[in-house]
Amino acid sequence: MIMTAPPHPFDDAIALARGDGDLFSGHTSEHYWNAISPFGGTTVATLLQAILTHPQRLGDPLAMTVNFAGPIRKGAFTAKVHAVRTGRSTQHWMLEIRQGEDAEPVITGTAVFALRRETWSDTESKLPDVAGPEGLASYAPPTAVPFLQRYDLRYVDCDPLAGGESSVTQCWIGDVPRRTLDFPAIAAYCDVFVPRVFVRKGAPRPIATVTLSINFHVDAATLARHQGTEAFGKAKANAFNGGFYDQEAQLWSRDGTLLATTHQLVWFRD
Amino acid sequence: MIMTAPPHPFDDAIALARGDGDLFSGHTSEHYWNAISPFGGTTVATLLQAILTHPQRLGDPLAMTVNFAGPIRKGAFTAKVHAVRTGRSTQHWMLEIRQGEDAEPVITGTAVFALRRETWSDTESKLPDVAGPEGLASYAPPTAVPFLQRYDLRYVDCDPLAGGESSVTQCWIGDVPRRTLDFPAIAAYCDVFVPRVFVRKGAPRPIATVTLSINFHVDAATLARHQGTEAFGKAKANAFNGGFYDQEAQLWSRDGTLLATTHQLVWFRD
Repeated sequence: MIMTAPPHPFDDAIALARGDGDLFSGHTSEHYWNAISPFGGTTVATLLQAILTHPQRLGDPLAMTVNFAGPIRKGAFTAKVHAVRTGRSTQHWMLEIRQGEDAEPVITGTAVFALRRETWSDTESKLPDVAGPEGLASYAPPTAVPFLQRYDLRYVDCDPLAGGESSVTQCWIGDVPRRTLDFPAIAAYCDVFVPRVFVRKGAPRPIATVTLSINFHVDAATLARHQGTEAFGKAKANAFNGGFYDQEAQLWSRDGTLLATTHQLVWFRD
Repeated sequence: MIMTAPPHPFDDAIALARGDGDLFSGHTSEHYWNAISPFGGTTVATLLQAILTHPQRLGDPLAMTVNFAGPIRKGAFTAKVHAVRTGRSTQHWMLEIRQGEDAEPVITGTAVFALRRETWSDTESKLPDVAGPEGLASYAPPTAVPFLQRYDLRYVDCDPLAGGESSVTQCWIGDVPRRTLDFPAIAAYCDVFVPRVFVRKGAPRPIATVTLSINFHVDAATLARHQGTEAFGKAKANAFNGGFYDQEAQLWSRDGTLLATTHQLVWFRD
């Protein structure tokens, strides 16, 4: 008799069956459901997972942009990831997700994968000098959407919903249950920050991410040496204006390795 | 006799002739040529210009990502901008540029346009407290590529090629000759910063932007009130690693309006 652990719900959420060519079939996850559609981080991670398992893939994730063009409904979806152009060290992908017979995609995007090589390296954005996650309280979110039960967020500086003049928050992020960091997890973490307008206003209100970009700063070999099961995230907004705001964030591993930087543009109602 | 001023070389560089449907014909500009291909900022501005002049356009630029998949050669090119999905307040576009009979695009990308509306607004990223451009020296770049002659860069803090531990630079940016700021100009300014690896190493070396993203923070009406002919830019890198580094920057108008924030991933050789 062979005993195997059940898969982590995140692995279930981003699981894909490869179809013809560039097509992959997936299914939304109850565990990572948000208010009216899936947690966007899972959507980004699913597209990344499609490329990671594509036989034409060159190297590791370097950058990606995912646009939330329409709401994903509960159920089956088809992801298409197409390698448009492959050079010596970079590979450019077009991404989309469709559902059913809809003429229009619900998600569009692009990604760049790359082969890194030994060069001079330096990190200017340092892990802030903060306490580790062990002594900090897990945050109890004010809304009970399912995906928030799948993340253990431990804020180092404040109640993220205290309201105030600054949108900056800092927190440790881990999966529930804990899961070793990989590229899909990092991609999902990039969308896990409490929305900046909640931070400023001290309360939830309707928001929707319109577009999200990630720059990855590690390759698979570096990630394997530094991954752990938690990342530290620092997020802020530059501006709120005319029904939209932005969010910028950095993610570090526990030993201070900068894993990714991310930027999104969000629709909000005040 | 009617006297008309000759068009600004930037307007010439981003000029397009609309063809069937989503297709536009353009031509690279000698004035905005870089070392081996056009200045990337012109390429980004050209794609933005295609959407701005497309009859299906909704609203103003909100975000865009442009991927430099292959080198653009001197001469004619075809830009294709396709409105994938239009909602009540946002519109999602797919972008590409092709040359000749090539099977693969040289440029891919996506853009989001949006209708802004009155909401609570606030800018957290403030224009640094610096001197205006009038008393500052125009920077004489060490390389004589044509596009650098089309920008008047006035650094407030330092010689950008002094080398050192920080990649941060701050400068006023204006067109040569001066030209009133509009969305294409802002898009081009996002790529005008001296490459961060030059700043750190104190000297030029081979680099190539792989992907560039812009978040716009003003709509056309706001821009019309605050545009002027110069913007202030602050740029930095988060990390240099394995042959790639990132660059983040903010752009403000003279009166402190945050115009755009931008992020790029760059290949470099050391």
